[in-house]
Amino acid sequence: MPTIWPAPMRPAAAPTARSLRVAIGQLWLPVGDLDGNHRRIAETMAWAEEQGSDLLVLPELAITGYPPEDLVHHPDFVGDNLEVLTSLAELAEDCVTVVGFVDPVEGGPGPDSTPRYLANAVALLYRGEVRGRYHKVLLPNYGVFDERRYFAAGERFGGTWSLHGAEVGVLVCEDLWRADVPDAQTGDGAQIIVSANASPYHRGKQAEREHTVTDTARRCGLPVVYAAGVGGQDEVVFDGGSMIADASGRIVARTPAFTQSRLVTDVDLPAAPEPIRSTFTCRPQRAEERPRLGAPPVARVPEGPEEVYRALVEGVAAYVDRNEHRLALLGLSGGVDSALVALLAADALDVHRVHALTMPGPQTPSEATADALDLADRIGLRCDVVDVTDELERVASTLEAATDAGPMAGEVLLPSLRAVHLSALAERTDGIVLVTSNKTETALGYAGNGLVLPGGFAPLKDVPKTLVYDLCRWRNAVDGEAFGWRVGTGAIPQRIIDRQPSAQRTPTRPDREIPAGYEDVDAILEGFVERAASPDVLVEEGFDALVVERVVELVDRNERTRAQLPPGVKVTSRGFGRDRRLPLTHEYRAQVTPRGEERTDLGAAQLVGEELWFEG
Amino acid sequence: MPTIWPAPMRPAAAPTARSLRVAIGQLWLPVGDLDGNHRRIAETMAWAEEQGSDLLVLPELAITGYPPEDLVHHPDFVGDNLEVLTSLAELAEDCVTVVGFVDPVEGGPGPDSTPRYLANAVALLYRGEVRGRYHKVLLPNYGVFDERRYFAAGERFGGTWSLHGAEVGVLVCEDLWRADVPDAQTGDGAQIIVSANASPYHRGKQAEREHTVTDTARRCGLPVVYAAGVGGQDEVVFDGGSMIADASGRIVARTPAFTQSRLVTDVDLPAAPEPIRSTFTCRPQRAEERPRLGAPPVARVPEGPEEVYRALVEGVAAYVDRNEHRLALLGLSGGVDSALVALLAADALDVHRVHALTMPGPQTPSEATADALDLADRIGLRCDVVDVTDELERVASTLEAATDAGPMAGEVLLPSLRAVHLSALAERTDGIVLVTSNKTETALGYAGNGLVLPGGFAPLKDVPKTLVYDLCRWRNAVDGEAFGWRVGTGAIPQRIIDRQPSAQRTPTRPDREIPAGYEDVDAILEGFVERAASPDVLVEEGFDALVVERVVELVDRNERTRAQLPPGVKVTSRGFGRDRRLPLTHEYRAQVTPRGEERTDLGAAQLVGEELWFEG
Repeated sequence: MPTIWPAPMRPAAAPTARSLRVAIGQLWLPVGDLDGNHRRIAETMAWAEEQGSDLLVLPELAITGYPPEDLVHHPDFVGDNLEVLTSLAELAEDCVTVVGFVDPVEGGPGPDSTPRYLANAVALLYRGEVRGRYHKVLLPNYGVFDERRYFAAGERFGGTWSLHGAEVGVLVCEDLWRADVPDAQTGDGAQIIVSANASPYHRGKQAEREHTVTDTARRCGLPVVYAAGVGGQDEVVFDGGSMIADASGRIVARTPAFTQSRLVTDVDLPAAPEPIRSTFTCRPQRAEERPRLGAPPVARVPEGPEEVYRALVEGVAAYVDRNEHRLALLGLSGGVDSALVALLAADALDVHRVHALTMPGPQTPSEATADALDLADRIGLRCDVVDVTDELERVASTLEAATDAGPMAGEVLLPSLRAVHLSALAERTDGIVLVTSNKTETALGYAGNGLVLPGGFAPLKDVPKTLVYDLCRWRNAVDGEAFGWRVGTGAIPQRIIDRQPSAQRTPTRPDREIPAGYEDVDAILEGFVERAASPDVLVEEGFDALVVERVVELVDRNERTRAQLPPGVKVTSRGFGRDRRLPLTHEYRAQVTPRGEERTDLGAAQLVGEELWFEG
Repeated sequence: MPTIWPAPMRPAAAPTARSLRVAIGQLWLPVGDLDGNHRRIAETMAWAEEQGSDLLVLPELAITGYPPEDLVHHPDFVGDNLEVLTSLAELAEDCVTVVGFVDPVEGGPGPDSTPRYLANAVALLYRGEVRGRYHKVLLPNYGVFDERRYFAAGERFGGTWSLHGAEVGVLVCEDLWRADVPDAQTGDGAQIIVSANASPYHRGKQAEREHTVTDTARRCGLPVVYAAGVGGQDEVVFDGGSMIADASGRIVARTPAFTQSRLVTDVDLPAAPEPIRSTFTCRPQRAEERPRLGAPPVARVPEGPEEVYRALVEGVAAYVDRNEHRLALLGLSGGVDSALVALLAADALDVHRVHALTMPGPQTPSEATADALDLADRIGLRCDVVDVTDELERVASTLEAATDAGPMAGEVLLPSLRAVHLSALAERTDGIVLVTSNKTETALGYAGNGLVLPGGFAPLKDVPKTLVYDLCRWRNAVDGEAFGWRVGTGAIPQRIIDRQPSAQRTPTRPDREIPAGYEDVDAILEGFVERAASPDVLVEEGFDALVVERVVELVDRNERTRAQLPPGVKVTSRGFGRDRRLPLTHEYRAQVTPRGEERTDLGAAQLVGEELWFEG
């Protein structure tokens, strides 16, 4: 294998272009769909060529989709990905295409005893050939990311490419989030920084990205091109957000969120510094030969409940469709959680592909069933009534007779029996069950303990209860048509939104009672789970010590009940899933420090062992 | 924070000891049990002191248990771990204790944009103080390991400590699996290498460890001390295997597998080379003052089905007990899988803590129920008969009447209803459901698709069907008393072992038929999953191309049905779980290359892009 860096230094023609025509392909590139991704990328290359683009930038690992995870250990996968690369190179004409792929490398000693034989790479395709490659230097290994598991790190921070008369610095995603790589490329004479990205959505993520992009542009005094993809991949959603910042750090182009789109624009370049330290020229510039394009769109960034709702729609659509399910099935209880999931499914899939059951048991109030049917009617989806009272009593009495465990609790049997009905129906109809548990329940262990679970998808797994209400209110107020959905306004009956949640209304067992109002519980969860605030800090922030202790204890004790829930869409900065990996079994119990006692803080504890060396 | 390396060079007394009295504490150290681990370590320190030991070596991350995962991000956890370290240091007398802990470090630039503020460390405790620390250099980030997620790597490969007149090289687990660290310590004058380890069990793992230990001893010409822990932690089991190799690479001491144990022996040291490059002396030697200890035990290494069975027992015991379940519940079908799980549970927990149900449905043959009861009787555990025929028919008819999905299939409803009974009983009795699916079923997706799943534990999740038979035969032949179990020989009726498995006997649906005999399917799975052999290689190895293609397709398509199964015990080199992380949703389909076509192999494909740089 040839080494990319260090590369031979070559004398280069001084850069002369004043602008570069840059195209971005914000594509949907499903993981493992090598043939489909070949087609999507090829179409975009043809379009960029037609536009007279100098450069086309695609998302990170465009050929394989992101993240391919252990697929890269699949014996044929990397070879198949290289075949796609070769074939795309053959299609390349005068527009230089920056395309992500998995590149085999010589396995050198890595961070452990196992060499890595692969790099997270981009190739530069031009006139029928792969003409250059760059290996990602910074490999994220935190949050949802595991890149150190797979990849050898690229070793070179700087370097530029001379493309159509412009000095171009090319990098991949994480490389942009620390100063070293873009600064080194700037030092080596770059006139523009181009980044291929795969950045999973969470609330407010686009603002973080734009901060990084504009900050880099200002610091380096260069335009920055940021290309990202869209679509759901299990727990994560890629929301797009491709953009271009000019050399002053102003966003001058942005693609619409959550939507496949193409963008092409002429990017003004600052003068190149002399001397250029590493330059490789593909051909003379052509920027001056054509009329300048008009100003590109700067799409608005969705905010608040809208961005969350749209991420959920993308996540549900991807999981159901890509796994080839014909129908989505769910149980409607007359509560807000199932109402929201029904609406999400209808918006994601179309009402004809959603089939609901409402399954009253012995204590289900008739207005709950009526509200469920009213909701289904307003959305326009099918909802069958399945009364499970008889079955429930029969199962309970069989079990009571056969064992001596005493009376069976309806609150355990009822959801389990409902799950049996939904799962059986799913199996008969090539359907998938959408589980309606929200993040608050999941955190406290009320969704899982002692219940059977249907295989499926849990759209609200990372949506706290208070956010469920916000989403219902937002969706009720907007006409879906504006977003390409069939359902209009006001689909969720007000009675559903106003009804007190069952956990607060009639806690059938004291250990299932929500320890405080949802506002407080969700705020404590946000602090403990997302911010990793300690119980003491939460008490200092004004929350009741007993409530804090109870919430923290339930979160800690319920890792294993959460572990078996279906996947759901990550919408917060730390969801339960890839993002947060705790032992299912552990004896650690975080506690509020009793008044009067002092907790050793880390600053003090760090002094332990300052006497470092044995001195006899 | 003080920097450990580079350390000031100090003139040192030439080492004079000819032997070192080394103690190993092969302890059970549950993750997060800081108080309990404090007690266990303190007791072992007192014992080692009594034995006149110079050095006590404990497992990796002894204070926190291994692996703590995201517990280290828990706001108070690291501080609490340091408090335990300080308290243990106060107990230290003349025996130098090597104890693992999580050490805060200054966060420098890491492999990505997020600094790591922690190291995987060992401290050297002596006369009331933490007198030295070592930070693990190689951080495994493959298989079940994720250490790069948490830790900054130690930067120093070499260096030794002068302890009781001997030059000692101290390192942590992965550091031993590559030559750099032990070789650098040898070069710096070490007379003995000491390693603190946490090495998860799989079949044949002890032979791999011993190869590494003896190889290092021979290469370095030094004795090697290897300390490991025991006990189950979710999917992994630590099986012990602590040992000492002499300078010629012969194993001279070994603790019994799967058992907490202590070992103390006088280890002969080779002469120290001159000059010693980094030496820090705790105090003059004392080796000559006492009579030499007798030869230590070299415990036998369990092999074949025995080692797997014992690992499963440890895994079940740990998961059930540490999660504070009073009972283990399972369904007995009259088949081998449930028979084996019943016996495992009885051996792991005692028969009084196992409660079985046998739940005949409309087509269950009466001899299956009779065999289940016979098995329960021989083991001595309670088994109640719950006939679910009526319930099954009622659920089916309710669903058929309410929807138009057509007749409901018993093979979906029956296991789901059984799961409901077990889960409800678990909830009433503080029990946990043991799911009886084996690895072969799990691989092919027959355990999960369309079914509801009880929360619980799946002991056989990584045990292929052919190994299930081997385990049954082995366990039937041995008297449990030899291993401290209550059940004697012959507990599994021969009729259960002889009965043809249901998937082969009466495949009720063609898509649930096992594609070939279990011997072939398991061999293909071993090749594809454990060895990552490509379909083409498996065909070359002599397996039928259609069978290979079908098995591989089922494995690839069923990631998501496996993802929701309860955790199980890893017993192969690659289990379904932490070990193997595939996207739940992906479009990649590995295939056998049709005759006549040629697959681009990686060697050829690597040539793509050899023309590396744009040259204009």
